[in-house]
Amino acid sequence: GAGTDNDLYINQAIVFIEDAIQYRSINHRVDSKSLWLYRWYYSRTCQWILSLTITIILALAFIEEPSSLTVTSDVRYRLPAWNPPCGLTESIELLCFLVFVLDVSVKSYLIGWKEFWKNKWLMAYILTLIVSLADWIVSLSFFCKESVRIRRILRPFFLLQNSSMMKKTLKSINSTLPEMASVVLLLAVHLSLFTMFAMLLFARTKDNQQDKEWVVYFRNLPDSLTSLLVLLTTANNPDVMIPAYSKNRAYSIFFILFTVLGNLFLMNLLTAIIYNQFRGYLLKSVQSSLFRRRLGIRAAFEVLSSLKETPASAQQCCVSVGALVQVLQKAEMDSRCKQAIMRSLKMCSCDHLSAAQFQKLFEELDKDAIKQHPPSPEYQSHFMQKMQFAFGHPYFGYLGNVVALANIISICVVLVMDADKQLSERDDFFLGAINCFFILYYLLEMLLKILAMGLKRYLSYPSNRFDGLLTVILLILEIATFAVYGFPHPGWRPDFMGLLSLWDMVRLVNMLIVFRFLRIIPNMKFMALVVTTLLDLVKNLRAFAGILLVVFYAFAITGIMLFKGAAVPLGNTSKQFFILNFLIQAPFSIKKVVVLYFKEKNVISWCSAHFQAEFIYCLLYALSVHLICRWAKIYFVAWWLISSVIWVNLFVALLLENFIHKWDRRCQRESLSDIEYQRTVELMFRDVLEEPTEEELMEKLHQHPHLQLCR
Amino acid sequence: GAGTDNDLYINQAIVFIEDAIQYRSINHRVDSKSLWLYRWYYSRTCQWILSLTITIILALAFIEEPSSLTVTSDVRYRLPAWNPPCGLTESIELLCFLVFVLDVSVKSYLIGWKEFWKNKWLMAYILTLIVSLADWIVSLSFFCKESVRIRRILRPFFLLQNSSMMKKTLKSINSTLPEMASVVLLLAVHLSLFTMFAMLLFARTKDNQQDKEWVVYFRNLPDSLTSLLVLLTTANNPDVMIPAYSKNRAYSIFFILFTVLGNLFLMNLLTAIIYNQFRGYLLKSVQSSLFRRRLGIRAAFEVLSSLKETPASAQQCCVSVGALVQVLQKAEMDSRCKQAIMRSLKMCSCDHLSAAQFQKLFEELDKDAIKQHPPSPEYQSHFMQKMQFAFGHPYFGYLGNVVALANIISICVVLVMDADKQLSERDDFFLGAINCFFILYYLLEMLLKILAMGLKRYLSYPSNRFDGLLTVILLILEIATFAVYGFPHPGWRPDFMGLLSLWDMVRLVNMLIVFRFLRIIPNMKFMALVVTTLLDLVKNLRAFAGILLVVFYAFAITGIMLFKGAAVPLGNTSKQFFILNFLIQAPFSIKKVVVLYFKEKNVISWCSAHFQAEFIYCLLYALSVHLICRWAKIYFVAWWLISSVIWVNLFVALLLENFIHKWDRRCQRESLSDIEYQRTVELMFRDVLEEPTEEELMEKLHQHPHLQLCR
Repeated sequence: GAGTDNDLYINQAIVFIEDAIQYRSINHRVDSKSLWLYRWYYSRTCQWILSLTITIILALAFIEEPSSLTVTSDVRYRLPAWNPPCGLTESIELLCFLVFVLDVSVKSYLIGWKEFWKNKWLMAYILTLIVSLADWIVSLSFFCKESVRIRRILRPFFLLQNSSMMKKTLKSINSTLPEMASVVLLLAVHLSLFTMFAMLLFARTKDNQQDKEWVVYFRNLPDSLTSLLVLLTTANNPDVMIPAYSKNRAYSIFFILFTVLGNLFLMNLLTAIIYNQFRGYLLKSVQSSLFRRRLGIRAAFEVLSSLKETPASAQQCCVSVGALVQVLQKAEMDSRCKQAIMRSLKMCSCDHLSAAQFQKLFEELDKDAIKQHPPSPEYQSHFMQKMQFAFGHPYFGYLGNVVALANIISICVVLVMDADKQLSERDDFFLGAINCFFILYYLLEMLLKILAMGLKRYLSYPSNRFDGLLTVILLILEIATFAVYGFPHPGWRPDFMGLLSLWDMVRLVNMLIVFRFLRIIPNMKFMALVVTTLLDLVKNLRAFAGILLVVFYAFAITGIMLFKGAAVPLGNTSKQFFILNFLIQAPFSIKKVVVLYFKEKNVISWCSAHFQAEFIYCLLYALSVHLICRWAKIYFVAWWLISSVIWVNLFVALLLENFIHKWDRRCQRESLSDIEYQRTVELMFRDVLEEPTEEELMEKLHQHPHLQLCR
Repeated sequence: GAGTDNDLYINQAIVFIEDAIQYRSINHRVDSKSLWLYRWYYSRTCQWILSLTITIILALAFIEEPSSLTVTSDVRYRLPAWNPPCGLTESIELLCFLVFVLDVSVKSYLIGWKEFWKNKWLMAYILTLIVSLADWIVSLSFFCKESVRIRRILRPFFLLQNSSMMKKTLKSINSTLPEMASVVLLLAVHLSLFTMFAMLLFARTKDNQQDKEWVVYFRNLPDSLTSLLVLLTTANNPDVMIPAYSKNRAYSIFFILFTVLGNLFLMNLLTAIIYNQFRGYLLKSVQSSLFRRRLGIRAAFEVLSSLKETPASAQQCCVSVGALVQVLQKAEMDSRCKQAIMRSLKMCSCDHLSAAQFQKLFEELDKDAIKQHPPSPEYQSHFMQKMQFAFGHPYFGYLGNVVALANIISICVVLVMDADKQLSERDDFFLGAINCFFILYYLLEMLLKILAMGLKRYLSYPSNRFDGLLTVILLILEIATFAVYGFPHPGWRPDFMGLLSLWDMVRLVNMLIVFRFLRIIPNMKFMALVVTTLLDLVKNLRAFAGILLVVFYAFAITGIMLFKGAAVPLGNTSKQFFILNFLIQAPFSIKKVVVLYFKEKNVISWCSAHFQAEFIYCLLYALSVHLICRWAKIYFVAWWLISSVIWVNLFVALLLENFIHKWDRRCQRESLSDIEYQRTVELMFRDVLEEPTEEELMEKLHQHPHLQLCR
């Protein structure tokens, strides 16, 4: 009947508006049951469970057999890591798989059969699940003794498919690949031509004293290629040229030419190309989000306009205000926006809304949330007003910064004086006394500020929250110290022992004081700009970081599997060392690892220099790696290319993009600096974005696979 | 009289037009004698002498006392370098100074007294000359035994002041300094806060086994600061974190945080800031060049229009064609442009030219030189026409590329097979035979191409010139080889000796063949784009390279002076090592030098690893450097900041700027790809440049200090 129809339309409108708010696609089933399922699936609980499942399945690698996390990485002191019994991690895995099966079926059902066949991500999801489950069964039937576990490498896929941002970014990276491949090809040509030159130049001679260069670096094709590839990472520069250079200085020309061409030109060209490709990336992604939002709102308008209560006489399509209010009350959205829309609705005297009016109402969603700080309390007493003026004044804040600086300098002086002292010679009296004074000042500053601004206003500034929290922690620590060790007095010895030694307590207090010094950031314009840029960047970078994590995970697991056999003599310690070496050696130092594993010789000298005690362990490990050197080479070169070359360049491109936008807008904003915006990427680009036209929206709506519009 | 006046005007016009062509300022004296002096000063001979003088005075450092260039850098085999007698380099220097005195006096005279006081560069020039001459006198009065020679550090200034491009670039870099300083300040804050954290975190403990980190890296404030500064260059990553990491894995968080913030964020922010500042740099500089050109032409018009022969009746200012022809004939300019302008003048039927017409005539100067290849010869015979079609076809060129590739592969195979063979086991028969065949093919290809295209057309393509030249050289080498060693036969042993051994000959031929393979570049679109970008970049980078050279020279000389005392035990060998270490370790590897000189320990292990024989020499040197470690630190940090951080970032900024412009224009040009332009920076920006208005030009002209316009 008309009533159930109307209910359906209302529900559809609710879901479409929620889609618009969350920038989701509206191409899903729209019958009553599906709508209920859809809202349930996208409810916070469900999504939270899904995220948790993904986290758990990824975290399993830390407790599973070949990798074992212990506090120290030193083989001598390490306790054997806990090995979970067979079946424990497997049953957790099964639970996770079941959640994923549920997830994929709901998703597939909701988008419908036709759409399912077009969606490659969903198909890949199902395939991954099937392979994983099969591998799981194999695993159990071998009682966890099987050597290869394919499903581990597939795990990061679950993270990938769950984030639309990451999928979008991946698509974008994918479209950059041809250009990147060209430069990498160019690099390869560069490398191979120079390798041939080098082999001809540094050939074997009759005099053994004269061909050191040949012996060490250019003995054969793989050696020469490796030497020059490592030179491209600058890791063996200038060692690689020293023997030739000491024979004849002119040989250095070859190496300089190679490095300038390869490192300065071609590598930076890669940066330029990636930046060039990514210049429009942010804008494009924000533009498509905007389109999704407008489409969702328009769809809501269309379904609401087909409600039966709409007067048939009205020629033009329109929506009654009552229906909209009903929808708004049921839809989940930011309460501030909801109130603002309700207010506008009341102000609008008309009974029916046209499409344009409807769209305009929801523009509230795009607006900045202007943060208004609560007002300061109004004091009656003249004295209090003067106090308020004095302690609410920015200069009082600056004074606080100066005091914090003084505190840091005093700590620094004590550190320099005590640097070489034995622990038993030290006396914490001086530092304890001045820190006590400074912490009292911080407390006083906080209280006076609260007095001047009122608690609510005080807490509404993030810098005050940071400041206040640290002050309170410092106070508690100080009181605890005094309670245990008494007030500072000469001979207040750092080696008194309690739960934490006095020395540890004092160090902790000092660290917190150094950390608290960061409160000066908002007071320095350039620093504030840099910090906000970095924060923005972190927001935009989440997708990239996710993709890096995916690649990283896959690489680490592959590494464990590849180099398992080579590490037999030492049990699982070296595998352990391996995966964690990766973790601590983020992209920027990977070239060192590359060199390390390339040249057995270097490994030995590195081992002897840095692991005096663990020397034999390190050496054995290095030799075992050397045995499978070919594989290791390819593996490390791939990792270097992906993490160090491509990812760092992507990062630089994003940073450039963000920074230049920020910088351009800085002048315009400076006048508005009093008002704090909660800036999002969408807002940064607002004046450049194009509104989608009516035709585009309607065309897209008519292509909807499940929604039949009456018009 | 009117005649001499007219002569003066004509001469003025000639000089102004030459100024316009060379983008020179027109603010110089304009009386007859000065004009003669001006043209003489800017004549090719004079400018060439000036450049030569600068080169000579800069090159003196290579033969002067503390630095001595020998073929090998190995102390054991090195012959003592030639030490010029006292007075030789000094008299060369005096000659150079006299040229500079002449230069500065002519320059000062030409711009006039008033302008002289405004010109800081000229004043600095005079000051430098005075200081240098005084230092020279001191030098001679001590019979060259004095220890400090200030004039050496001042030498690069002569290079700097002679190039207007470099002066402009320096100004531009100067305006970026405040932003760069902000980031460097931020880096300093970052470094000092983390240093304090580190000193608190890795403090001395009671257990000597546990505080390895403290002992090695964080013993006191300078040590901690150094450790973290070097970590910022990634040179001691991950060594610096290993002791703490093997104690507790969680310590790695500190180092990762430091590196991510400092290295990934702040360092790349520097790139972003420098790029942002330099985005408009090229455009601005081209724009100001354009203004100078238009101004020069306008000035020429104004002086010509005051010629007495101009009919008094003409109200409007105009120039007779005859006068212009007279000027053009005497002015020095590109003959192609001159002819084009003459042609347009003839086509224009009018007797007098207005300002706009005059300006329009000279637009020929801005135009691309469209390179037209001479036509192919037209053969009568049908057979010859077919031949021409076949061998003029691009596919014939591709075939040539394939053959060159085959040749390279064959060389590569032989290299791989012969890699480990003793020189006496080798047989060059196979390689000699196939190279002979390939070189014959190259010769045939060249001849057939010349047949098809005609010699002139063949030579008009740069790729053909490259190809042909190498083919001819290869042919000569091959003939010489056969003449000395006979035709290849089994047992054609590489150790036969002649002027060059057969082995050396074959290697040389192979190298040339590898080099010849570069002819494929124009055939690959992306490669061609990259190569043209790089060539453009090199053009635009000359100024930057010059400034780098200036800084480099000053640093090297300062280094020699600073570390002279420390190197006494070894005579001048270590000084030698020092300056040349700089030369081979271009900016990208400087961080290694920094580490090397920072940690005595590292130097020793490095010495033992790389200079087995020279170990003691190296060690002594390292210790002597360590004695003056404080100075060395500051010196190296400064050098690292300038060469590695700032200069490399400037380079990246320029590359980005160039590449993005190129890339944007690539699509537009693809249709025109048949016509080869001789592209200049000016042309790249032509559609973005703004023409200066009439008012701007006239205002500037009226401000001319020496030219009185009649109107």
